[in-house]
This record gives sequence, C-alpha cells and structure tokens, in this order.
Amino acid sequence: MAKNAIYAQSGGVTAVINATAAGVIQTARLHPNHIGKIYGAQNGILGVLNNQLFDCSQFNQHELDQLYYTPGGAFGSCRHKLKSDDEFEKLVAVFKEHNIGYFFYNGGGDSQDTSMKISQRTEQLGWPVQCIGIPKTIDNDLPLTDNCPGYGSVAKYVAISTLEASLDVASMAKSSTKVFVLEVMGRHTGWIAAAAGLAGTSPQQAPHIILFPEVIFDEEKFLAKVDDTVKQRGFCVIVTSEGIRRANGDFLSAQSRKDSFGHSQLGGVAAYLTSLVQEKLGHKHHYAIADYLQRSARHIASQVDVEQAYALGKYAVELALSGKHGVMPIILRQNQEPYEWTIGDVPLTEVANIEKHLPTHFIREDGMGITQACREYILPLIQGEAYPPYHQGLPDYLHKEIIQHLR
Amino acid sequence: MAKNAIYAQSGGVTAVINATAAGVIQTARLHPNHIGKIYGAQNGILGVLNNQLFDCSQFNQHELDQLYYTPGGAFGSCRHKLKSDDEFEKLVAVFKEHNIGYFFYNGGGDSQDTSMKISQRTEQLGWPVQCIGIPKTIDNDLPLTDNCPGYGSVAKYVAISTLEASLDVASMAKSSTKVFVLEVMGRHTGWIAAAAGLAGTSPQQAPHIILFPEVIFDEEKFLAKVDDTVKQRGFCVIVTSEGIRRANGDFLSAQSRKDSFGHSQLGGVAAYLTSLVQEKLGHKHHYAIADYLQRSARHIASQVDVEQAYALGKYAVELALSGKHGVMPIILRQNQEPYEWTIGDVPLTEVANIEKHLPTHFIREDGMGITQACREYILPLIQGEAYPPYHQGLPDYLHKEIIQHLR
Repeated sequence: MAKNAIYAQSGGVTAVINATAAGVIQTARLHPNHIGKIYGAQNGILGVLNNQLFDCSQFNQHELDQLYYTPGGAFGSCRHKLKSDDEFEKLVAVFKEHNIGYFFYNGGGDSQDTSMKISQRTEQLGWPVQCIGIPKTIDNDLPLTDNCPGYGSVAKYVAISTLEASLDVASMAKSSTKVFVLEVMGRHTGWIAAAAGLAGTSPQQAPHIILFPEVIFDEEKFLAKVDDTVKQRGFCVIVTSEGIRRANGDFLSAQSRKDSFGHSQLGGVAAYLTSLVQEKLGHKHHYAIADYLQRSARHIASQVDVEQAYALGKYAVELALSGKHGVMPIILRQNQEPYEWTIGDVPLTEVANIEKHLPTHFIREDGMGITQACREYILPLIQGEAYPPYHQGLPDYLHKEIIQHLR
Repeated sequence: MAKNAIYAQSGGVTAVINATAAGVIQTARLHPNHIGKIYGAQNGILGVLNNQLFDCSQFNQHELDQLYYTPGGAFGSCRHKLKSDDEFEKLVAVFKEHNIGYFFYNGGGDSQDTSMKISQRTEQLGWPVQCIGIPKTIDNDLPLTDNCPGYGSVAKYVAISTLEASLDVASMAKSSTKVFVLEVMGRHTGWIAAAAGLAGTSPQQAPHIILFPEVIFDEEKFLAKVDDTVKQRGFCVIVTSEGIRRANGDFLSAQSRKDSFGHSQLGGVAAYLTSLVQEKLGHKHHYAIADYLQRSARHIASQVDVEQAYALGKYAVELALSGKHGVMPIILRQNQEPYEWTIGDVPLTEVANIEKHLPTHFIREDGMGITQACREYILPLIQGEAYPPYHQGLPDYLHKEIIQHLR
C-alpha cells in the first residue's frame, strides 16, 4: 500500500535548490505504487508543524520545467530547529493524518540534524518515517560530499563577477578607483571567497587578495599587500568573506572600528576594509556586496551544479524506494580531469552539525589567496552555462504568484 | 593624403564600451586612403597629453573579436577635465607629431564637453582635428539620444538581479529576512533604479519600492509603505539609487544618521535604509550593493545594447569620413513595438554638460515605482542575451595582460 511523501526546503536558499525539488517530484511520480501523493511543505518544517502542505501533483509539466530553472526556494524555506517533545508529537500527528511514509528534507548542516532527529523520533513515537536528507548549501560546508548543490553556481557567479569588476577597476585606476573590495558570503568558511581565485591564473592577476574566515586578519600585512599591489600593478582587487576576524575573535565589521572622527561604523567587512584603506593609504576605492544576488544568480548557474542538484533529488527518492532511511545522498568525485562524479549515500549521523572548512593546503602560504590544489578542486564545479530560457529580455522563471496559487 | 586617428575612452566604463572601440577600429581599417594609423590613447585624454599612444593595428582578428565582448575599458579610462591653455597646446603638439586628423572620444557628458573644446581649440591653434564624440554611459543621462550605450546592459543586469533576489527573499520571509534592499548606481538620475521595475509587472510584485534621486525622500511615507508591504505580501523588496536626498538636500548616507546608540554611520544608502527599517519596524533585513558588478556584467549584456554600441563606433568613423566634426552620433527610436532604431548625429554643443533626468511621467504617482510609459521605454533596451564565449567555465575575455602588452 503506497504511502505519501513530503518534500521541504530549509535554510538559506540557492540558485539550484528547485532543480532538486524537480528531481524529487519527477522521480516520485514514476513510482505511484510506492509513493502516493507528494506534498510540498510550506516554509520547511514549519509547514509540517502547521499542517500547511500542498499537493505537488498540481504542478503541470510546464511548471515543473520552470521549477527546474527557477532560483530561490519555491516551496518557501525556514530557519527553525525542532526542540520540544511537543513539536515532534505534532509532526507525527501530521504525518499520520496525511499517511506520510517518506520525508525529504533539502538543506544544510542544521537541516540534516533536523532530518536525523525526525528519523529517530518518528520511530520512537511509533510512526516510522523514512527520512532522507538532501544536501544544499552555497556555503559548501557539509562533510563527506565532494561539494554541495548551490556551491558550483555561486562559485561561478563570484569568479565571473570578480573577473568583470577587475577589468573595470583596471580601466579606472589611472585617475580614479585603485582599490576594489567585493564582499561575498561565508561566515565561518571561505569556500565562496576561494572561488574568486579562479578569476586570475597567477598571484599577479586580480583578485590580488582573498580573505578567508579560516585565516586571522592581520591588518599590517593586509595594508602592506594592498600598498605593494597598487604600486606594482596600478590597482588592487580584494575579495573578502563576510566573516573575517581578528586574533581576539572579533569580526571586522559592525561597530568594531572608529574612523578618524571617532565615529563608530556600522556595515559589513567591505565598508570596514575600504575605510581602513582610505585612512591608512589614501587610495580611492569602491566596494560591492553581492549578498542575495550571488546565491540567486540562476541566470549564470553552473551546468554541473544544476545536474548534480537534480541528480541528488532523484537519488534521494531511489534511496527511499530501496528502503533506506536516516541517510543523505552525496556526490563522489571519481576523477579530477576530466571531472567524473557518481552518487553515494552516508548516514545523517555522520553529516549533521559538522562544518567542513577550507583545508590548509587550499590556502596560499601568505594566507591571502588560493593554491593550485584549490583551483583544481573548484574549477570542475563551475563548468557549463545553464542558461534559463528568456521571455521579453528576462528569465522565464516560475512566478511567485503561481507558486503562491499552487500552495 | 591620409591622416591618422586617435580613439580614447573616458569616464566610468561599461560592459559594452569596447564594442564601440571594435566598431571604430574595424570601420577605420576599411578606409586606409583616408585614415592611416588608428592610435589608442592610454587612459583617455591623459594618454594624449602624455603622448602614450599605441597602434591599434597590433590587435589581430581574434583579439578584436575578444575586444567586442570584453567589459571594462580596454584602453584605460580617465576622469580629467582639460583646463589650461598649456594642456591644449600640449595636445596640439601631440596631434601634430602623430599627424592626427581625427579624434574619437568615447564618453559621457563631461567627455563630450572635452570633445567639443578640443574641436574648437585645435581649429584656433591652427591644427584642426575632426572631433567626434561617441556616447557611452550607464547613467543614460545624455540628451537627444534615445539611450546611451552601456545603459541597456546595466538595466538588464539590474532587472534580472532584482527578479532573482526577490525570489530568494520570498523564500526566506516566513522565519527570516523580510526586507531586502538593492543599491544601484545613479547619483543624479534614476534611470538604473527604474530598470529594476521591469522585474515586476504590477505594483503588488517585487520590487515594491524604487527610490529615485528625482524624488525627495520622505521617511514617514517610506516606512509606511515598507510596513504595509510586509503585512500584505510577507516581504518587501526595495531598489534604491545611490543618490537619494532629503528635502534639505542632504544625501541619505555617510554620517547623515545616528543609530539608537548615538553612533554615526558610514556607508551608503542601503546601509542607511536597512538600519532605519531595523530601528523603526524591527524587520530582519539584508542588503546588496551592486557597484562595479552592475556596469561590468558583460556575461548578461543586452544584445540590443551591444549592437548599438558597435553601430555608434562604426557611424562615428563614417561621420568623420563625410567631413563632419564637433558632432556625436545618437540613437533614434523609430518605432516602439517592435523596437526599431537608426543612427543620426547632433552637434556636441547641444549635448555637452546636459543631464537628462527621469521624466515625471515615468515615475509612479506615489514616487516609489515606474509607470507603464517608463516600462515601454526601457523594455526594448534589454532584449536579447549577448552571451560571451566561455573557456573552462569563465568568459573568454581579452586578458588585462594582453591589453597591457599591446599598449
């Protein structure tokens, strides 16, 4: 007797998380004898708790096609950690009411912890649900998997944007902007900033400086490098992770520095660094903060990333059909050059709450750039341009209104 | 007897200014009997003043092809206003030394003033040079021309980025970010911010608020609209020009506001607006600053923009060959739907130092959005995706090193 399934999205969304959703839905539809209805939960686990589920059979083929190339989380996401026994009992009640046998939770480290707990607690509460975690995070910080869906596309966007902005600054440097800072995401890990390193092929090329959360910020060394680069190359391009800290653990941002007038500064690390450069070196500067643009830039998504995101959704369903639970499918790198990958799976207990940092051998000796090993790791992940179809000059994404209507 | 030509780039660069350069070089090469050598000036008029010219015949066909799709100003740009008689005499000396009969200056309003002065002064100083200004500015603020090359591409980038980020925020709004601000360029005019309006097709759709330099900022009205939008739609997307002012003329940025601790704030208008929202409404927020990314985003340039940029370069040479001087080619909109355009020309005296603002009938009655007339004006300019070729996952742009070597 077929049981029903719930698919939900969790945590910060990506340019390709909906490709995973499409992979889950399309694969589940092929197995009506085992999986009855596929419900989408509105806003992640909150949608299950609040019994806000919608039937994914409402997606027609065109809408599913659009879902595949629409950025953001079409189902709505959430940041919510399950805590109380009450919440688990509420979940089980909803699972029972809708005859749920499968739960697919698409998220990062915290979300895999949630999947794991649901897997364990539903069994304890007498309504065992096969929980499959599906990896997703632009941060690329999940362990065991070669990479995380969403990362390849943000890496491609950041590498291209760095290359393009560098050509711009190079044009302006003679009589105007000499220092440019691009702030990218990454509070604890430098994977995204590292991708900017692909824009140059030697330490002389931009980006001249990359700052990682894994490396303690050394103001003197940083300023010396900026100064030297401007003298040698005429300009300096810096890419910084948002989460850079001093030796004492303080972030280089909000209120951590006063300017020459004694004013404290709000704002992120890019504002901090440019004001430091202004005060100490006097160079004209500009800064950009990519923020949500970087993780939603489906218009220049990596083809490899889109394919992996879809494949993981598909494989998650296959894992469920084969009787597995409490597991997460992962990408396995079979070969570096040419890049070849397959999919395997690991127990959720081995991935929940573990954060994979940039390894030391990926960081250049001076702490301000990437090594050849890092380049060889990231480069395959940005291959191919997965352009969405366009209508009247704009990507033909699934409309927010359609999504809300379906819900 | 053929005279030589100089081509130079000036002011802030764009994603398509090099397409204009390619148009100039390729067209001039077709007329060796009239135009001998084509020199590129390094860093705009500074390169002429400093006698730093390079022979464009060094570009081989492959490099010219790359030039066509490489963002930034490959020749180097500058911000320099000619003032003293000395400078004009120096210019004329360089023109004489290299037998220069044609000068093509590719820039915005200030640069057209420079072209005009050079045209007048070289005649007075006994070495008349045919000066042709070629329009270029992402700001889209030159008069008489339908639009300015560089604008269509930045408009496309901003519209797409707004659409993508809106889908992201919509996913997160339930339990996290409810207000998102994108800061775009535009110190005096709101043309770039206006393009964000293409991302939605009704006032209910994101972007919910657009702020223009042409409209005085009304804090109360702004906060009421944010609050109402979050209540009605669940989230609020705001796109702001960098140059927003209060009724007293003060910019909404650097040090213009103190937070609840009495700290002054540095940073731009996006930081200002989000901190205002935080303090008065308490919503979680994020902000992005597109800065140079927006004007160098050749990876998603508008096909119409690229074609117009090239055509203006070509036409500038044809104007010179026909004996004209002190003029600038412009785009003429012949038809709106389907968009049809031709090229004409106007005297530089009619374009120099004039700034075209967003007309009142392009701004929605509440001052925080665009009208249908504005949409109909901008939409044709973002049509077509002029993708550059890729190599190993990155656009195959002309390398900075090659450019420096050629110079």
